[in-house]
Amino acid sequence: MKKVIDREICEIVGEILGSYDKGKTIDHTEVFAQPDPDAVIDILKKLFKIVFPGFFRDKTFRFYNISSRLTVLIEDVMYNLNRQVAIALRQNEKYSDESEEEVNLAAEEICVTFFKKIPMIREYIETDVKAFFDGDPAAYNENEIILSYPGLYAIVTNRLAHELHLLEVPLIPRMMTEHAHSKTGIDIHPGATIGKYFFIDHGTGIVVGETTIIGDNVKVYQGVTIGALSTRGGQRLKGVKRHPTIEDNVTIYSGASILGGETVIGRGSVIGSNAFITTSIDPETRVTIKNQELVLKSGKKDVVKNDIDIMEVGNYHI
Amino acid sequence: MKKVIDREICEIVGEILGSYDKGKTIDHTEVFAQPDPDAVIDILKKLFKIVFPGFFRDKTFRFYNISSRLTVLIEDVMYNLNRQVAIALRQNEKYSDESEEEVNLAAEEICVTFFKKIPMIREYIETDVKAFFDGDPAAYNENEIILSYPGLYAIVTNRLAHELHLLEVPLIPRMMTEHAHSKTGIDIHPGATIGKYFFIDHGTGIVVGETTIIGDNVKVYQGVTIGALSTRGGQRLKGVKRHPTIEDNVTIYSGASILGGETVIGRGSVIGSNAFITTSIDPETRVTIKNQELVLKSGKKDVVKNDIDIMEVGNYHI
Amino acid sequence: MKKVIDREICEIVGEILGSYDKGKTIDHTEVFAQPDPDAVIDILKKLFKIVFPGFFRDKTFRFYNISSRLTVLIEDVMYNLNRQVAIALRQNEKYSDESEEEVNLAAEEICVTFFKKIPMIREYIETDVKAFFDGDPAAYNENEIILSYPGLYAIVTNRLAHELHLLEVPLIPRMMTEHAHSKTGIDIHPGATIGKYFFIDHGTGIVVGETTIIGDNVKVYQGVTIGALSTRGGQRLKGVKRHPTIEDNVTIYSGASILGGETVIGRGSVIGSNAFITTSIDPETRVTIKNQELVLKSGKKDVVKNDIDIMEVGNYHI
Repeated sequence: MKKVIDREICEIVGEILGSYDKGKTIDHTEVFAQPDPDAVIDILKKLFKIVFPGFFRDKTFRFYNISSRLTVLIEDVMYNLNRQVAIALRQNEKYSDESEEEVNLAAEEICVTFFKKIPMIREYIETDVKAFFDGDPAAYNENEIILSYPGLYAIVTNRLAHELHLLEVPLIPRMMTEHAHSKTGIDIHPGATIGKYFFIDHGTGIVVGETTIIGDNVKVYQGVTIGALSTRGGQRLKGVKRHPTIEDNVTIYSGASILGGETVIGRGSVIGSNAFITTSIDPETRVTIKNQELVLKSGKKDVVKNDIDIMEVGNYHI
Repeated sequence: MKKVIDREICEIVGEILGSYDKGKTIDHTEVFAQPDPDAVIDILKKLFKIVFPGFFRDKTFRFYNISSRLTVLIEDVMYNLNRQVAIALRQNEKYSDESEEEVNLAAEEICVTFFKKIPMIREYIETDVKAFFDGDPAAYNENEIILSYPGLYAIVTNRLAHELHLLEVPLIPRMMTEHAHSKTGIDIHPGATIGKYFFIDHGTGIVVGETTIIGDNVKVYQGVTIGALSTRGGQRLKGVKRHPTIEDNVTIYSGASILGGETVIGRGSVIGSNAFITTSIDPETRVTIKNQELVLKSGKKDVVKNDIDIMEVGNYHI
Repeated sequence: MKKVIDREICEIVGEILGSYDKGKTIDHTEVFAQPDPDAVIDILKKLFKIVFPGFFRDKTFRFYNISSRLTVLIEDVMYNLNRQVAIALRQNEKYSDESEEEVNLAAEEICVTFFKKIPMIREYIETDVKAFFDGDPAAYNENEIILSYPGLYAIVTNRLAHELHLLEVPLIPRMMTEHAHSKTGIDIHPGATIGKYFFIDHGTGIVVGETTIIGDNVKVYQGVTIGALSTRGGQRLKGVKRHPTIEDNVTIYSGASILGGETVIGRGSVIGSNAFITTSIDPETRVTIKNQELVLKSGKKDVVKNDIDIMEVGNYHI
């Protein structure tokens, strides 16, 4: 028996190896040509420790002196981010013919520029924490928000990844935001530009597209899509503004869809639950679906109820 | 070159350390003042092993004797939960001036009270497993439900976290339910009170708010929100009943929203897919959206179809 | 004090052990009778390394020779899958009375048959990567899709788990797809049969039921349900075709629901966002919700807007 299975394995290995030889996209066998997903996630986790120095402690070493702890942490992230960025840059045409030294130098410059943005990113994140606390009666305190709110995790990840996206690092920003998407169900592309005091409630099912621009003080609830109209353009639409602009102080309640690169939601507007919007909305406008008709059947009588006004309806963070 | 990067890092560390000094909420640097998310998740995993002693085996040690295995496991969880609860209690005003010894004693009492509830919690969970199996033709057997159903994971986590919530432990119950939210896409606040035989199908996108009360034998499908009406009250609404009451034997199909602290869904009612409900519904009522009008375009002819009755529509667990 | 807590723990252990003795479903204490969730997830991760040999590198060992690397990997997965399948088969009535040797032999045969399918599975996955790249202007390149797109992760997992499902392995296929569901928010049952060039956009909230049949070149967006009509049949419906058939070249936009075992969506049809469909649709038909009426309130004037045509509306991958 043992010999039969040995022969089978030999044959299986041969068949699978053979299937790598057909020039398919998925046939690359050189693992060191791709950024390492585990390394990128590890970098993201450590960036959270830098952003929130008093949360998310480190198991492996323990410095009581914040300055030594931070220095070690930053050198660690710098070194590893540098390596991953250098690998990713190879996939950018601009660098495909450069020497290894040139690419490493470019990666180093990107990392230094990125790290210099961190104090500014932290200023933005502070405003988000405030917006979450002010908007949610279920929040025990700000610490609970930092330790457990998925919406905050998603916006912090976007703010970090967005800076790498602006520095034209391929793949890595998206790997970061897809990690956040996986953890939170909130899918914000690293290309999306988001203002201060951003508040996400619950969050599962939210989609925010690559070329979206969002102002300050915007609130977004679960299941909201800020997406593109489908014009079947596929790859030809690369780089075109395909997603909406949301101005300051807009609230978008659960399940609403706002689509299209020319759609602008004017400042101070409120978009009601499940509204489907493909054209611009003036400032200070409240948009709701007109009277959803419900049928209530109860024993003998049938009642059609038509008076539900979902104006002002949303729902707080649980 | 090496020296340039060294100087850069030095400068970056200085700037980031400087950014911790501005009195922001996110500037705390004392990591030991916060419960540890990893430790809390580890406690939750071990509680699952206690709830389901024949599933989720332990890699690190292996006792064939169930009694020794359980004793070791309980002592382990007790010790670690105790530590985390003591840290969290510090954030409750009631304990902020107490001595370390007093806080530890309070944490110990909470843990003992919590553990004494476990047999009762297990009785409830047994009813949930039954409800999942009875409701889902795709379920192979009960073991499949325990090993892989996200809905069961979410309700078990709620039942455990809810008891800690009732014991007024800050942060930790929410960290547990947000871990379940992250794993399952199901967002049940630890404050929600849920009766026996609870059945969640698919589950992604479900939101159940803090002050929700749910009776026995309730079925909830993917994308359902049991939430609050937005009255822009923010933190002023803390503690107020803002979420609905769902009585016994109610079924709520996918995508429905039920909102408001005074909304009561009467026993035996069925809420159809995508219904949006902000007022109370009498017992034994079937509520559906009236005739969604569809436009069908096919070559030359346009047809408006208006006869789809979504009464009784939902969908089984895949 | 120490003695009090010791006595308490003793009592708690007694009570919990006592609660295992009541004949409940969740009372099994024999952990080795169940497949191990961690082992199954580890197998799935290694299968990804076999499918995409140039991505997802291995930390623990490092072979530069692809052939040695693959041989070691396949033997490892073969051995571990074999063990888990043998445990799972015990839960199939067919094998419940067989000797251990017989069950192991059956497990071995299943594993060999499964591995021989891998080159064919890889052919299908290559078509999916192409469909993702062609359909999404936000995709940087194919590598980004493989490294970070949740939709690809979900369909690859389905393609692997589906083969184990066809080989009638209990529990394990579902444990794999529920792991993908947890990571991606996309819930595809291992029983679902899916053609080539499948494209999932964003994905959170998608549900695809057990008996669904999907043709080639189908595109599905976030929040789509391909589910069953509820006929309250529960376990009696096991094995019955309860989910729709989707023919070639169909596009289903976000939030649409298609329900029922006799529902067929004809080839080339496009189903608009949020449509709710419970009957068959002819080929080459475009189905949309008729004019969602929106109410716009802005200062003094109220406007009812009724001209939004959501035909052709969807949204690209962010």
